[in-house]
Amino acid sequence: MQRGLLRVAVLALPYLFAIAGAARYPSYGTLQTTQTDGVLNVVINNTYSTINLFDKYVQSDLANLIEELQAPDTDVRVVMLFPVSLLWNITQLPQATIAMIEGRTRGIGNEFIMSCDMRFASTAPSVLFNQFEVSFGVNPGAGGAMYLAHTMGRARAFEYALSAQDVDARTAASIGWINTAFDTSAALHQYVQTLAARIAVFEPMGIAATKTGINAVSRPPFDVLVRDAQNVISGLLGMPSVQAFFEKFIEATHNQSISPLELNYGRDLGELFKCQ
Amino acid sequence: MQRGLLRVAVLALPYLFAIAGAARYPSYGTLQTTQTDGVLNVVINNTYSTINLFDKYVQSDLANLIEELQAPDTDVRVVMLFPVSLLWNITQLPQATIAMIEGRTRGIGNEFIMSCDMRFASTAPSVLFNQFEVSFGVNPGAGGAMYLAHTMGRARAFEYALSAQDVDARTAASIGWINTAFDTSAALHQYVQTLAARIAVFEPMGIAATKTGINAVSRPPFDVLVRDAQNVISGLLGMPSVQAFFEKFIEATHNQSISPLELNYGRDLGELFKCQ
Amino acid sequence: MQRGLLRVAVLALPYLFAIAGAARYPSYGTLQTTQTDGVLNVVINNTYSTINLFDKYVQSDLANLIEELQAPDTDVRVVMLFPVSLLWNITQLPQATIAMIEGRTRGIGNEFIMSCDMRFASTAPSVLFNQFEVSFGVNPGAGGAMYLAHTMGRARAFEYALSAQDVDARTAASIGWINTAFDTSAALHQYVQTLAARIAVFEPMGIAATKTGINAVSRPPFDVLVRDAQNVISGLLGMPSVQAFFEKFIEATHNQSISPLELNYGRDLGELFKCQ
Repeated sequence: MQRGLLRVAVLALPYLFAIAGAARYPSYGTLQTTQTDGVLNVVINNTYSTINLFDKYVQSDLANLIEELQAPDTDVRVVMLFPVSLLWNITQLPQATIAMIEGRTRGIGNEFIMSCDMRFASTAPSVLFNQFEVSFGVNPGAGGAMYLAHTMGRARAFEYALSAQDVDARTAASIGWINTAFDTSAALHQYVQTLAARIAVFEPMGIAATKTGINAVSRPPFDVLVRDAQNVISGLLGMPSVQAFFEKFIEATHNQSISPLELNYGRDLGELFKCQ
Repeated sequence: MQRGLLRVAVLALPYLFAIAGAARYPSYGTLQTTQTDGVLNVVINNTYSTINLFDKYVQSDLANLIEELQAPDTDVRVVMLFPVSLLWNITQLPQATIAMIEGRTRGIGNEFIMSCDMRFASTAPSVLFNQFEVSFGVNPGAGGAMYLAHTMGRARAFEYALSAQDVDARTAASIGWINTAFDTSAALHQYVQTLAARIAVFEPMGIAATKTGINAVSRPPFDVLVRDAQNVISGLLGMPSVQAFFEKFIEATHNQSISPLELNYGRDLGELFKCQ
Repeated sequence: MQRGLLRVAVLALPYLFAIAGAARYPSYGTLQTTQTDGVLNVVINNTYSTINLFDKYVQSDLANLIEELQAPDTDVRVVMLFPVSLLWNITQLPQATIAMIEGRTRGIGNEFIMSCDMRFASTAPSVLFNQFEVSFGVNPGAGGAMYLAHTMGRARAFEYALSAQDVDARTAASIGWINTAFDTSAALHQYVQTLAARIAVFEPMGIAATKTGINAVSRPPFDVLVRDAQNVISGLLGMPSVQAFFEKFIEATHNQSISPLELNYGRDLGELFKCQ
């Protein structure tokens, strides 16, 4: 699979990584950034991983970036993040954050884009959304399902977070999972860049204050997020059944390579349960 | 009207029952349950009531069922409830709950399905949703309007809860009242059974933890629900105008039989106000 | 532009007024009210302003009206407000409130209709919604963006409140900004009057109690609204960059007259930033 500059996060599995854990590459080069007129473009491009995995190196690079963006003297007003992820701190940024998606976005990949203010995608067949933690026996520990509830209502959040189904871009837009789906990559880029440039002329403090208001009524409280994360970390991940499933998954996907199961996880995950 | 195995709740009126109150049948036989591979199918089939009324006997049978499902040693992971209702405890269940609707669902019937995690219906003309308590001079005392606000936004919750309008399945799906409307009963059953079977292979603790997260940010708090219920019970139900309306309704519907007014309540309720 | 009886709020800019501040007309005559069968129709018709500005005189007249409606002995059950606005107290009214929109509704004009329970509009090209405070370097200080989050989800609330884009009625209905868009003015009036007449036959206490329930779970808390308003009033409005923009806007729009920029603000606001 060729990944162009703007191709994005494919099947991110941090919990899986927490088990596989091989330190195969150094902590640099997973982010490509460019900045013009108040807009920072960030391409998350983990070239060391065939599936652009959101692993601890991506996480570390993003953490450094977020810290920089939080500095009061920054003049960046719109951050465009091309998945995948950093979560709570992202929602706290004074800049507007826009996720632009042109590939599979699952697990923490989806939690990452849900932590951005807005989400836009193309309708390419490879664009699939999935909050699949439940299939590993755990909950989405970084707030994914909670943000889904705040964008698509609790009924559909239950449906998708409990079934680990893949959702295509058109369906995602129709239920509010993403803001809009665009028929072509060009139309997607055109809209997002225009939107970013438009926001970038406004005063930073007005942007930050507007975000504060929306967050005040529609963001999971931090303590609730923390409790949910603790469910995964200290409780569920240690269970033998969960560890057994992780091991089975790693074997079936050849350790996060672009295997058919990795690409078609939403459709084919049932295979993993047949041989239990 | 013939009611097949999967036909569901038609015009549930618990507040009405609280006045009519006749003890016509013993407390058993309102629920038919079958269980296979982690999926419990529950058909609410009150054969003693021509309108499948959610009365105190259905309520008692459901309470026993819910208690059983809350037991820690249960191996049921998905509960499919074919309306009508038990509410708060239903939202607390560790199992996924799916309401499948093929008939009128009004009043507490609607509050029941809103307390389930998900709702799917066919587009048969008999499928109608209505949160009509306001027409009786009271509020939906079991959280119905609050759950509507969490699935369709406050504006449409106001519109439907204040107007006591019937909403058909296609409209309901378009505004999020239900997850999806299916053109045929077969398609409805196919989707729901596939969804249930899919969820049923996942680890129970992952399902429960995922539900905890969604509930933490999108469920009316218990004390708010209690206060709302008290509005009805200790305040409004005792008002002469409300009691007069209940009596008029009982007379007009021949005590909950399948009268034209019962079937077409959303359309014809105005008749009851003309002769006041 | 001719404004008929039911033509409504066009580009309301209270913050602008707070700077321009000219006392050009006395405090009366901005509201036309008629009452029949429990429905109060209120046309906000500021004939002293070519753009039907929501200024301190409209605000004062509305405050008196709201106070009257809060009196316990009122027999009005449905209030129809033809924009523009009074906000928190409006959400507290025991009556159902319906905004009917046939013109531009921006800034506090939009905050006003968001504070009503429901919103209906025609698809006339002049109907445009815009929460544009960010373009002035401030946040929507009366809860506009928060109510948007409660009706369209946080992602789209971010998109529109951060971009100051105009949204037409059809798009607004598709994302929940308004309840429904009607192809003709006649259809709009027909629906709203029928809805109002239907609600008006119900008991006032049932209406009020139902509203209490929905508000309990889907309204920004008062202290959050106050904090957000303080962001604007004591913080951002005093900043030199914000004041400079207000002055530029007043000059460009010839002090709130029907200038092309006023009418096409969402499309043309970029002009104001080119000469900064």
